[in-house]
Amino acid sequence: MKKIEHLGIAVKNLDASNDLFEKLLGVAPYKEEEVASEGVKTSFFMNGPNKIELLESTKEDGPIAKFLEKKGEGIHHVAFEVDDILVEIARLKNEGFIVLNEEPKKGADNKLVAFVHPKTSNGVLVELCQEAPPQPSPKERE
Amino acid sequence: MKKIEHLGIAVKNLDASNDLFEKLLGVAPYKEEEVASEGVKTSFFMNGPNKIELLESTKEDGPIAKFLEKKGEGIHHVAFEVDDILVEIARLKNEGFIVLNEEPKKGADNKLVAFVHPKTSNGVLVELCQEAPPQPSPKERE
Repeated sequence: MKKIEHLGIAVKNLDASNDLFEKLLGVAPYKEEEVASEGVKTSFFMNGPNKIELLESTKEDGPIAKFLEKKGEGIHHVAFEVDDILVEIARLKNEGFIVLNEEPKKGADNKLVAFVHPKTSNGVLVELCQEAPPQPSPKERE
Repeated sequence: MKKIEHLGIAVKNLDASNDLFEKLLGVAPYKEEEVASEGVKTSFFMNGPNKIELLESTKEDGPIAKFLEKKGEGIHHVAFEVDDILVEIARLKNEGFIVLNEEPKKGADNKLVAFVHPKTSNGVLVELCQEAPPQPSPKERE
């Protein structure tokens, strides 16, 4: 766990929240990206060594839609940068954490990601993320 | 807003959660500190350029006790480091944010802090924090 790579915040309307967080952070988002497999549209803001990710749901039954329904807008997850996500997944499982992804998957912002179930981490949804190597793809690595 | 100074996580039992986060982050907490005025006992973990703060309530009607009752354990706030907290409070108020502290107050970890009401920041409780100067104290500055 090298640093907080980003903090993920669930929002109802990405455009409106982009304006709000631009005022809060004093910088505009540096990119927007849709991750169709996750049912989210995201935007990213730089904040020194960290990033803020806003997430709007694009699927009625997606994870962000469910989170908004249950808890409303707010902090959704914290992502930690790791050097080797496979090593970190194995280490955490060995420590008793439930890792939701046996194999890392492709997330937003060119990352390989895996999530730790919040019930094993004090209610905190923890994401592990590693910069995805350009080649080979995650599938080809297997 | 220079970086995420720390992420604050509300926990029921600080000792148990210290063990859990030591396993998660791979490091032990570097200090514990009680902030009687806030009704909290805290611990801090280094994580690269960032910190993780765990907060246990020491008051039945304190802010962390209320948060736990309403939402359960989980991420409570995000704190951003700022160079000049007075300038940042004025800037945010001017942008339409509700800042809960007209004057910064003394927080844990030798910081001057102020909070932004989550209703004006997408449900996110935002803390501004600035390293407190050794002299003069905040009271003497007035």
